[in-house]
Amino acid sequence: MRRVEVLKSVTSANDAIAAQNRQILDKHRILAINLMSSPGAGKTSLILKTIEGLRSELKLAVIEGDVASKIDADKIDKQGIPVVQINTGGSCSLEAHMITSALDKLPLENMDLLFIENVGNLICPAEFALGEHKKVVISSIPEGDDKPMKYPLMFTEADALVINKVDLLPHFEFDLVRFRKAVKGLNPKVKVFEVSCKTGAGIDAWCGWILTEAKRVCKS
Amino acid sequence: MRRVEVLKSVTSANDAIAAQNRQILDKHRILAINLMSSPGAGKTSLILKTIEGLRSELKLAVIEGDVASKIDADKIDKQGIPVVQINTGGSCSLEAHMITSALDKLPLENMDLLFIENVGNLICPAEFALGEHKKVVISSIPEGDDKPMKYPLMFTEADALVINKVDLLPHFEFDLVRFRKAVKGLNPKVKVFEVSCKTGAGIDAWCGWILTEAKRVCKS
Repeated sequence: MRRVEVLKSVTSANDAIAAQNRQILDKHRILAINLMSSPGAGKTSLILKTIEGLRSELKLAVIEGDVASKIDADKIDKQGIPVVQINTGGSCSLEAHMITSALDKLPLENMDLLFIENVGNLICPAEFALGEHKKVVISSIPEGDDKPMKYPLMFTEADALVINKVDLLPHFEFDLVRFRKAVKGLNPKVKVFEVSCKTGAGIDAWCGWILTEAKRVCKS
Repeated sequence: MRRVEVLKSVTSANDAIAAQNRQILDKHRILAINLMSSPGAGKTSLILKTIEGLRSELKLAVIEGDVASKIDADKIDKQGIPVVQINTGGSCSLEAHMITSALDKLPLENMDLLFIENVGNLICPAEFALGEHKKVVISSIPEGDDKPMKYPLMFTEADALVINKVDLLPHFEFDLVRFRKAVKGLNPKVKVFEVSCKTGAGIDAWCGWILTEAKRVCKS
């Protein structure tokens, strides 16, 4: 019981800071998307594909969260997109105060869309609000179709679900119908996109959704 | 700083309980292996392949750890192997006290080898000793070759690393040499096995290692 109490007090302090982040984002009319998934599901690949698809229409920036390394930030930086790398040390999720510090380092006056790439983990990130407008979960075909049953909170909290690596479907016993049914059972309103960051399949529909959401919020 | 202090007090209490678990396991001459990986890397598949390979030589049992569901325990139960499912609720790792409760429900007098399948997560499980003799990490090809740099503690703590889904190498830009070099840089003594739980490649070498370790500990 003590652990739950500690977590509760940590997350309510976090929620207050997340609300302040949201005010900063809204003031600057920036749409913020919190991207969450298992390690290696394709968060950075999806960001790179979205940069390719939307860079002529929206001004993008990225916050990269990892326990260690700056591998992902280097990939974004190569695209000429403003990026801040956060290393959490041992922590299994980004937390709102980390985002506050990162926002200080970004050109807020010149941004429409902020991707926050969370630490690769299907559990902890679901517990920490960051101030984002949308929570997006990425699942990938090689992970298997049982993940919504095993990690229900993440799938319940998501505004959108991206099913990545669909080009690999012939190599796996992944039942898309069963998977979608399990997700919709937890979260009937979730938007679902099937994509392959490798072949580019489905990326247009994903970018279209972001553009619609951005029009509600952004200055461009 | 406060979060770190809380974690430290939790893990030192955990270590004391883990030591008690280890005494129980040693008393019954049971080799315990803590299996850790990202979601969907193949922990359950590796256990099923090991059951197939070693069931005539060793008496096996399994503890399954998941945030929710009993999908994995059902797969083990179908093989007629004693299994206990632990659901951690929100917790991102098994902890030693959960193992103590599970050991109570297993036929210790009639066991040589216990697999403890941890929660799918590359961060938290590295922080909690369970009383195991060996820590084993599974990485899978679709996750990408950068994981040791991003999640160093898990790879530093492992006694053995199983690289699973090697049958998928032709479909991914996964640099095995770079991956092995990064792992050995963190952990020069780690044993490495390349396997495919789908084709069965490399499973003999993995089972051979377990058998050698079991001979040092077990009654069979």
